[in-house]
Amino acid sequence: MKELDEKGQRARTAANILSQVSSLDKNKALKIAAANLRLHAADILKANSTDVQNAELSGLKGSIIDRLKLTAERIDGIAEGLEQIINLEDPVGEVISMTVRPNGLQIGQRRVPLGVVGMIYEARPNVTVDVFGLCIKTGNSCILRGGKEAFLSNQALVKILRLSLSESDLPEDSVQLVEDTSRESAVAMMKLNKYLDILIPRGGAGLIKTVVENSTVPVIETGVGNCHIYVDSQADPDKAVAISFNAKTHRPGVCNAAESLLIHESVASVMLPLIGKKLQEKNVEIRGDETVCRILDYAVPASEEDWGTEYLDYIISAKVVGSLDEAINHINHYGTKHSEAIVTENYTNAQKFLNRVDAAAVYVNASTRFTDGYEFGFGAEIGISTQKLHARGPMGLKALTSTKYIIYGDGQIRE
Amino acid sequence: MKELDEKGQRARTAANILSQVSSLDKNKALKIAAANLRLHAADILKANSTDVQNAELSGLKGSIIDRLKLTAERIDGIAEGLEQIINLEDPVGEVISMTVRPNGLQIGQRRVPLGVVGMIYEARPNVTVDVFGLCIKTGNSCILRGGKEAFLSNQALVKILRLSLSESDLPEDSVQLVEDTSRESAVAMMKLNKYLDILIPRGGAGLIKTVVENSTVPVIETGVGNCHIYVDSQADPDKAVAISFNAKTHRPGVCNAAESLLIHESVASVMLPLIGKKLQEKNVEIRGDETVCRILDYAVPASEEDWGTEYLDYIISAKVVGSLDEAINHINHYGTKHSEAIVTENYTNAQKFLNRVDAAAVYVNASTRFTDGYEFGFGAEIGISTQKLHARGPMGLKALTSTKYIIYGDGQIRE
Repeated sequence: MKELDEKGQRARTAANILSQVSSLDKNKALKIAAANLRLHAADILKANSTDVQNAELSGLKGSIIDRLKLTAERIDGIAEGLEQIINLEDPVGEVISMTVRPNGLQIGQRRVPLGVVGMIYEARPNVTVDVFGLCIKTGNSCILRGGKEAFLSNQALVKILRLSLSESDLPEDSVQLVEDTSRESAVAMMKLNKYLDILIPRGGAGLIKTVVENSTVPVIETGVGNCHIYVDSQADPDKAVAISFNAKTHRPGVCNAAESLLIHESVASVMLPLIGKKLQEKNVEIRGDETVCRILDYAVPASEEDWGTEYLDYIISAKVVGSLDEAINHINHYGTKHSEAIVTENYTNAQKFLNRVDAAAVYVNASTRFTDGYEFGFGAEIGISTQKLHARGPMGLKALTSTKYIIYGDGQIRE
Repeated sequence: MKELDEKGQRARTAANILSQVSSLDKNKALKIAAANLRLHAADILKANSTDVQNAELSGLKGSIIDRLKLTAERIDGIAEGLEQIINLEDPVGEVISMTVRPNGLQIGQRRVPLGVVGMIYEARPNVTVDVFGLCIKTGNSCILRGGKEAFLSNQALVKILRLSLSESDLPEDSVQLVEDTSRESAVAMMKLNKYLDILIPRGGAGLIKTVVENSTVPVIETGVGNCHIYVDSQADPDKAVAISFNAKTHRPGVCNAAESLLIHESVASVMLPLIGKKLQEKNVEIRGDETVCRILDYAVPASEEDWGTEYLDYIISAKVVGSLDEAINHINHYGTKHSEAIVTENYTNAQKFLNRVDAAAVYVNASTRFTDGYEFGFGAEIGISTQKLHARGPMGLKALTSTKYIIYGDGQIRE
């Protein structure tokens, strides 16, 4: 596709320049961008209100429109996000390790930018600025392909971001928006190996699956979370109630929210009513197996499909298991390798759960809601990787870097 | 493809078990495998001699047959390779870092196996055992798809490796050979996202290109090396001669050998004759630009194609450049991001080269031949990554691991 080839080439040229820019100059650009977003807020709001009107006319869901909609306050929050990135440490240039070999060669591993980052995402204009900030900070250029519902908003934002780069004497092609929002442009991005070093999809399960299954560009798979809370036979009841309630209801629409509750049979009849009662405070629908439905008369029967479903809503599936092993096997079978938690006071069970559950983040006695770049102390987040290559779990600035070996010699040759 | 689906499923089951095996037990299996390779050497040699005969009958190149051919001594070397892996530290289980968050959560990052490793390679039976050893040590299962010319050899080897696993009480499906050596089986592996966590191609540029451009499984791109030696205006002549000669002729058939010589115009007339004379000791053909051909009457004119060619032979392209910038731009344009070297006594030029050349390994005053897992001190190598994601440069055991976050709480919930 012509548009992407051209943008890819320009992004590559910009990346070569950006990779050599000092933290000082990159921070200056972020500061200018934050100021310009506030300065031109009216332009952004105007474009956004057209997007929102169109979305309403085409009958999109309220939750999608809520994510699409910008306000003066939200724009200020987005600008603040950029300013927060300024204060983070720039990982680029850090020498992770340097050793001296027996022949005197000094071999060091230095962090460098990835190069060109591609992003495919849905109708969330804040992602546009987030990704820009994280990429500029780490010396990467980016090509953004946002959802068509947010196109006018993204266009207004990227215009301001490019202006800001230009005012900072950085290449404005460091950020480029794909104008073609057809399915074809997404497919073309997935094959743009020549220019993209990485492609990150952010959005619903369908989008992510499509990108993972079709992209020949290296992908970081993010975000789908069918997360479980397992209440062990030796769980503390207060912790079990608090953690289940928090993980399910604190913010049900996000990937680290719990979607399924497993409970050991020896404590089910005591603890299920406690947890169920608490969940009823938020009108959570419980879809249970036979035993759960027997214990809780307000639970509805779960189907096989429920065990694999990420509801992102006030719904939770619930199952009674006969052993820790059964719980672990269930999680490894139905989970999405995102975040999983055990509630237990038993040391050996806790260790077994940590060792055997295959997920990006495995918790003992804490809510899965903590899987998040900010909560992990990274200061920022480009997404949560649920795959095993390159980065796993919340991805901060370091996930946007690669390394290169630098070797200082004094004439060494190989014998 | 049925064969791959079945093998994939079995490899996944084996990987789940392997991920929990102690270093002690994994080392025991490697020791038994090394002993069994020696014990059953006659079977391996018999199968191999049929492969070699067939290869000779079908008129394959001598260098390919040399790589295919096994001897009692080579089998002993392969077994010794396994024994060396025993002595390396097992990276699995290492907690890279653990921090305590303000809310008391202890968040650690622990190394875990990748899972299932796929390998597509050419007719080199030693790779079969190498990959087995590195995968077992790191708790990964592997699916091997070797070249059809080595099929009988690989079959004999894998039979012994599986027997050894069985004798060690490890799942024998930890190593599986793809029986179908058609193009279709390679293509099916590239789409086996459901079971493969990573796919590593090892072989010539054509094979690697095909895999990178067609695989939707995460790929680690390895090995193609169009490596340059740049002789700076302030190069030490002795170092320039020794490094150029070593990088080109020490082992011309490997990826870290130099393929191109760049030399600053201010020293070309003095140093080119010195370097050329030394290269003539090994009858290296020099393909030069106009200036090179004027200085060396035995050089032949280079075509545009030469600048991008990995000869893997006693041939080197040579070009006179007007500046360090020109050298860097040439390398970043024609290079394959493998290994690049500058010869200089000038501090600022050395730093500029290290900063601006985009490659897995960048050298000052040393031969590119050092880009190698053993020379870098990793003790083993599964390949040399020339891409930026997950691993870059020589890949040792750590490149075969991922991480997971383990979190110790005492009831924390997110407010």
